[in-house]
Amino acid sequence: MQALIERIQRDAVHIGGGIVKVDSFLNHQVDASLMAAIGAEFVRRFTALGVTGISKIITAEVSGILPALSTAQVLGVPLVYARKQMSKTMTDQYFEATAESRTRGTQVLLRVSQRFLGPADRVLLIDDFLATGSTIDALLGIVGHSGATLCGIGCVIEKPAEGGRERLAGFQTPIETLAKIEWRDNEINVYG
Amino acid sequence: MQALIERIQRDAVHIGGGIVKVDSFLNHQVDASLMAAIGAEFVRRFTALGVTGISKIITAEVSGILPALSTAQVLGVPLVYARKQMSKTMTDQYFEATAESRTRGTQVLLRVSQRFLGPADRVLLIDDFLATGSTIDALLGIVGHSGATLCGIGCVIEKPAEGGRERLAGFQTPIETLAKIEWRDNEINVYG
Repeated sequence: MQALIERIQRDAVHIGGGIVKVDSFLNHQVDASLMAAIGAEFVRRFTALGVTGISKIITAEVSGILPALSTAQVLGVPLVYARKQMSKTMTDQYFEATAESRTRGTQVLLRVSQRFLGPADRVLLIDDFLATGSTIDALLGIVGHSGATLCGIGCVIEKPAEGGRERLAGFQTPIETLAKIEWRDNEINVYG
Repeated sequence: MQALIERIQRDAVHIGGGIVKVDSFLNHQVDASLMAAIGAEFVRRFTALGVTGISKIITAEVSGILPALSTAQVLGVPLVYARKQMSKTMTDQYFEATAESRTRGTQVLLRVSQRFLGPADRVLLIDDFLATGSTIDALLGIVGHSGATLCGIGCVIEKPAEGGRERLAGFQTPIETLAKIEWRDNEINVYG
């Protein structure tokens, strides 16, 4: 996605260890118009692949919510975001799975209410990053437990060096990412 | 906002202690089309009040992000969401303020990068709930420290019994809420 690639080239900051900071347009300050275009691009790509009848978008809080909401708005279907913290209003039965957060160095338990995902659902998973694939793997575990049909995975930015695509290959579902980032010879290389 | 009021009447669940669960359409599963309409309604109301020249929407993670992104997309301006957890990519100087979370029973530190808010900004604050006003009060502290101009506060659901509107009165800025919920005689009362 050319507009995204150019934005990453212009504004992303490498802060060491392969970690790229995109907080000026993606996950702290958010370019709302770019985010709307990202949602439209995911829909265009999965439609081109013949993926139809999506009933729900799934993601995990926090920063996955932005591209996921944009995609859900284009499709006109609900979004379900897995929650990471319990609150007093969480009184349901939950599908649960554990993910590691590389940028935080911790493990987090993801929860999705059993009221909002079931065998009748056809699910598209949307997230901001495909890096190690840990969060997505956990979400796919939740989708599997629910009996819903997984139709595809869409991530805004992929970091191929971290192996997420290989980790998720066994799910045999299309994976679309809108920009790829590599760290090579002390420079960020961004491509489609 | 009639569509929202009817949705709350149909789907909100009171789980005791005045806490209302709206996780089937607002903050776990999200009705993406309703959320788009909520964004449009905030813009319509603040425009009608003569509020113009908004340069940024501000909110706090997690559930404020949804109505805030929708509003930012209608206005075509960036959204900035205050972060609650540190991560390895947070290497800036931050404006900070503390809020209490009633549904979690904890205190949280909100952070906004000093790169994304400053004296040139005209800010509209958008959040999902106006209850005690603690989170919003903290966000307004951050807006104040940044030197930005506060133009208004918009919340999806207000719980007037918890006093948030009174707490925020000193900021002398318009407060728009799209539905109000009261808990009286063991029944939820929803109105505009």
